Amino acid sequence: MADNNTVRFGLLGCIRFASKFVRTVTQSSNAVIIAISDPSLETANTFAAANNLSPETVTVYGSYEELLDDPRVDAVYLTMPVTQRGNWAVKAAEKKKHLLVEKPPAQDAAEIDRIVEACVSNGVQFMDGTIWLHHQRTVKIRETMFDSGLLGDVRHIYSTMTTPIPEQVLERLTKDAMGLAGAIGELGWYPIGAALWAMSYQMPISVMALPSSVATNSVGTILSCSASLQFGSTATAIVHCSFLSQLSTDLAISGSKGSIQMNDYVIPYKEDIAWFKYTSGAKFVDMHIGWNMIPEKVTVDCSGAEESQEAMMLRAFTRLVQGINRGESEADRRWPEISQKTQLVVDAVKKSVDIGCQIVYL
Amino acid sequence: MADNNTVRFGLLGCIRFASKFVRTVTQSSNAVIIAISDPSLETANTFAAANNLSPETVTVYGSYEELLDDPRVDAVYLTMPVTQRGNWAVKAAEKKKHLLVEKPPAQDAAEIDRIVEACVSNGVQFMDGTIWLHHQRTVKIRETMFDSGLLGDVRHIYSTMTTPIPEQVLERLTKDAMGLAGAIGELGWYPIGAALWAMSYQMPISVMALPSSVATNSVGTILSCSASLQFGSTATAIVHCSFLSQLSTDLAISGSKGSIQMNDYVIPYKEDIAWFKYTSGAKFVDMHIGWNMIPEKVTVDCSGAEESQEAMMLRAFTRLVQGINRGESEADRRWPEISQKTQLVVDAVKKSVDIGCQIVYL
Repeated sequence: MADNNTVRFGLLGCIRFASKFVRTVTQSSNAVIIAISDPSLETANTFAAANNLSPETVTVYGSYEELLDDPRVDAVYLTMPVTQRGNWAVKAAEKKKHLLVEKPPAQDAAEIDRIVEACVSNGVQFMDGTIWLHHQRTVKIRETMFDSGLLGDVRHIYSTMTTPIPEQVLERLTKDAMGLAGAIGELGWYPIGAALWAMSYQMPISVMALPSSVATNSVGTILSCSASLQFGSTATAIVHCSFLSQLSTDLAISGSKGSIQMNDYVIPYKEDIAWFKYTSGAKFVDMHIGWNMIPEKVTVDCSGAEESQEAMMLRAFTRLVQGINRGESEADRRWPEISQKTQLVVDAVKKSVDIGCQIVYL
Repeated sequence: MADNNTVRFGLLGCIRFASKFVRTVTQSSNAVIIAISDPSLETANTFAAANNLSPETVTVYGSYEELLDDPRVDAVYLTMPVTQRGNWAVKAAEKKKHLLVEKPPAQDAAEIDRIVEACVSNGVQFMDGTIWLHHQRTVKIRETMFDSGLLGDVRHIYSTMTTPIPEQVLERLTKDAMGLAGAIGELGWYPIGAALWAMSYQMPISVMALPSSVATNSVGTILSCSASLQFGSTATAIVHCSFLSQLSTDLAISGSKGSIQMNDYVIPYKEDIAWFKYTSGAKFVDMHIGWNMIPEKVTVDCSGAEESQEAMMLRAFTRLVQGINRGESEADRRWPEISQKTQLVVDAVKKSVDIGCQIVYL
């Protein structure tokens, strides 16, 4: 039973992927789903049944408007196609609903700005669904490597998000479904965000899509792209996203003193445990027949209740919402700022693609 | 005691690093060092003493010419600065000495071509000292991932070689000491060679140094550079080399079916054992709360006698020399071809730097 502190969620969009969010909320002690909605009532009903959402506790709506008009709903989780997110996010904010929006939250930076402005005007929290930022491993890396000085100054970042899509489906990826940035928004959001995270959200001075890395389908949707990001004279990042490669989610950060490696930063191999590897002060031994160390493996136990990265994200979001609802705090500006910065870089890479892989200055 | 099959080596250059070669030959059953040389006789004598090279079995020369005139010497190992390697390699070939040359073997592709031509004319073997190509792990990856189809078509390669040099030394890195390509030749040789190896020596159609990735010291020596390599429309590679970052030797290969990861491809963490990791057919599990697998770790035992990568290289070289010396085979053209292709790409990246990070077509 929901107490006064429990955040009451409504779903805007009943895509299959939203099942993960339902699962996370169901396991949570401070959130509950009280309504779901989809433009197709049939889709919404099927989703409710598939996810054991009882009609006694969860209202099923055949339109987003109805759900937004439900005064019991505190917060909404938006999963509809990216091309619709911006408009519905603004409407939800105007209805005083706190917003958890699947990534990418909008089609471009201007659209995110409109969402964030609506959230600020209406005093509601905004957060996009970049789950890995909430993983305990991410926090642990920040402490272990950055705060301690073991990494030193960041010099180079390499990050990927590639996941294959069957050939016959590639042609069906339209800009209506995928947004204008295509793979750069859908997938590139992760490595671009990872590069910004590694740079503590310092913005790049310029970006450039790499010639020959860009592949599109016959309707012009970007399917694959690599880009370089220049952070002043001190650091560069390479980001790579593709629907044409095997699954890869690599994040390698090289610093002046140490380096970090992960191959599963977006979604850890396992839900209950995660690890990263690092070296600091590594060098070849005398005569170069080996190293003075092998990488240190740091393991983070996430087997406890509500310790998955989804649960951690949900908790971070609900705490902010609870604080606002109790009148104890204002909406946290850090999360929307991270989304805005990430989108600005996504847009810049997209622009570089559009102008033939020329450098785009930010 | 050397029998007729034993390859008798002479050293051209007595830098400290040559100790590794001495150690490898000493442990070898089919090679022996019979002479060393350095323009400074004192340096040569000090090297002999430091490496327990007895005057009874090893002749010490105060000039390269004298060593090349020693008819007992079958093969030479060249370690002098890169700016001198080309000339001495040609002279050695003309004296019918087989050539094992530290990498990079020359300053540019034209110079390597001259060396290779001299070797062909004189019927001697050429091989550069890119040791990792001879490691059993390298062979194992080729079999396990490429030949088996587990990797599929190569889509993306990421490779680095970074090793820090103290700040006060950076300014002393002149083009006389480092060659015109600076870090691209000294360090970039490895990731460029790794990309070519991953592409089974298909040449890129174009390369481009990445804007803002290039750092030089006050005398214009390149200290750091990233570059992208385009292999037709199907594959791209990112290579990164730097004297400004912590030690990193990463090689990640993403294919249409699988991926390979190593963080110590140049020199394995340990001499007696090495490993790589791969996935094939990896995907997120239902609801994206993990993967359907964790990377497979393949370990290669190199603890046996003459199983280090240096010993493997020496054995590969001596077998070729023995075959030629016994009149059973001609010089193997594959090794010089690998060096030539690697240098062509090094040169193209260097040219891209020179023309402001424009695309250079090969």
